[in-house]
Amino acid sequence: MTEHDELRLLDGIAILDPKLTELLHALDQTFSDWGFENGAQAICPPPVYRTSDLAKFDVYVNFPHLSFVAGPLDASPESQSKSGSFSPAQIQTADLGLPTATCFGAYLFLEDRQVPDETLITLVNRCFRHEDHYDGLRRLLSFQMREIVAVGSYQHAREHLEKFGEKVTAFAENVDISLDKLVAHDPFFERSGARSRMQELQAVKHEFQSDGLAIASVNMHRNFFGERCNIRTGDGAVAFTSCVAFGLERWLSVLVDRHGTAAKATDRVLDAARVTVRQ
Amino acid sequence: MTEHDELRLLDGIAILDPKLTELLHALDQTFSDWGFENGAQAICPPPVYRTSDLAKFDVYVNFPHLSFVAGPLDASPESQSKSGSFSPAQIQTADLGLPTATCFGAYLFLEDRQVPDETLITLVNRCFRHEDHYDGLRRLLSFQMREIVAVGSYQHAREHLEKFGEKVTAFAENVDISLDKLVAHDPFFERSGARSRMQELQAVKHEFQSDGLAIASVNMHRNFFGERCNIRTGDGAVAFTSCVAFGLERWLSVLVDRHGTAAKATDRVLDAARVTVRQ
Repeated sequence: MTEHDELRLLDGIAILDPKLTELLHALDQTFSDWGFENGAQAICPPPVYRTSDLAKFDVYVNFPHLSFVAGPLDASPESQSKSGSFSPAQIQTADLGLPTATCFGAYLFLEDRQVPDETLITLVNRCFRHEDHYDGLRRLLSFQMREIVAVGSYQHAREHLEKFGEKVTAFAENVDISLDKLVAHDPFFERSGARSRMQELQAVKHEFQSDGLAIASVNMHRNFFGERCNIRTGDGAVAFTSCVAFGLERWLSVLVDRHGTAAKATDRVLDAARVTVRQ
Repeated sequence: MTEHDELRLLDGIAILDPKLTELLHALDQTFSDWGFENGAQAICPPPVYRTSDLAKFDVYVNFPHLSFVAGPLDASPESQSKSGSFSPAQIQTADLGLPTATCFGAYLFLEDRQVPDETLITLVNRCFRHEDHYDGLRRLLSFQMREIVAVGSYQHAREHLEKFGEKVTAFAENVDISLDKLVAHDPFFERSGARSRMQELQAVKHEFQSDGLAIASVNMHRNFFGERCNIRTGDGAVAFTSCVAFGLERWLSVLVDRHGTAAKATDRVLDAARVTVRQ
């Protein structure tokens, strides 16, 4: 392809061109390989769930304003539309939720199941956020998030974040972008009194920001998801969880800005991936 | 993982376990490699579009009954919900459409652009269909479809289907599943008088069915998408398009039924991929 070889942006929605697609795959392979090297197994989650399943995680208590919901069109004659212009009243039911984060799929996968103390799962998904404005690849309505999720003992969950936090820092140096690691607030815990107090005692979320843009985060959930999904370890205790998350299109944006083209950024990522493994 | 190493089905929605995820990746890599070997480039489409963009393809004229639409929750106090139970009236706008097929992303990517006569594009996406019932991996609300799309001259579009139709047949033999190639009707052309007449003269869609389940199809669109998206070839003519499409979870279902486990099916796919390349 020649003349049409460029990113298509449709009002918060992106169709990535071949070079950006290659960069995204190189990045995603790098991050998932970090999981595999540490014993992670990959699962494949869907980009839509029943709202009743997402509600288990207080999604519609903590951030209804970010959430999209979906349903089938009704069978009225108006649903046969040439323009695709519909009113919400033409939707039959509103029981499908578009997820705001990837790791929900891991907890629903493990619901009512028992796991070894040092379980690692990796998964990538399409995520969706309703924002008041969108901004290129930096802020999209629909984007991809790769996660590596630890499930099991408290110690396992904590060590996961230390190990992968170091990997993020080393990798960023190797692709020549400067990252600030900042304490952040996790919306999962913000509105709950008990959890807010816990959050004051111990940071539960750190973001890795490049010029103010969060492109990765490490998150300690304690036993929140384990409780909500009844995930148990071998001794019957509620599992602890933590995750490291990568906003893939944001990495694309930062890397292309830094290296000039997607092709040059891809070369740099492939080189850095080899070096970072050894670190 | 041990006890929790199994597919999770949530009312038409699947979370694939590690073995099925591996099989899906092996299949998807096989099909996309067929594209790359023939010069295809990969693009990365989103799992949601504006309904006004999908309407360009008569989606809401031909199959509103299959379509899901989405929008953000309104800011009313009821949108802060513990149960995730919403009425359609709580959706602010209904201007996002979940796609029923993958190749729409290719035409929107190429909209108002000019392409070489023998362009090949490959892409995989999440697709969504509202059905009256769902059935394991055979019939899902949300599933993955890999496509290889030809764009350019009429001859290119026709030859694409011949070449890849033969590949599908050879690959099916190599993974030991029997496929019937059947003429099918394309909903894109069913309700248009002129196009229906055209369809009578020349089959525009063939499905590859395993025991009555369509797992792949080859589709001739003539210049329908080229016209709707103003895609032109080098000489300024409207581009012709055709595609070969693979319903990945349906392949999983058929292959696991045939070979007993996902792991055995993966081995068979990897062997067959090597053989089929040489054919």
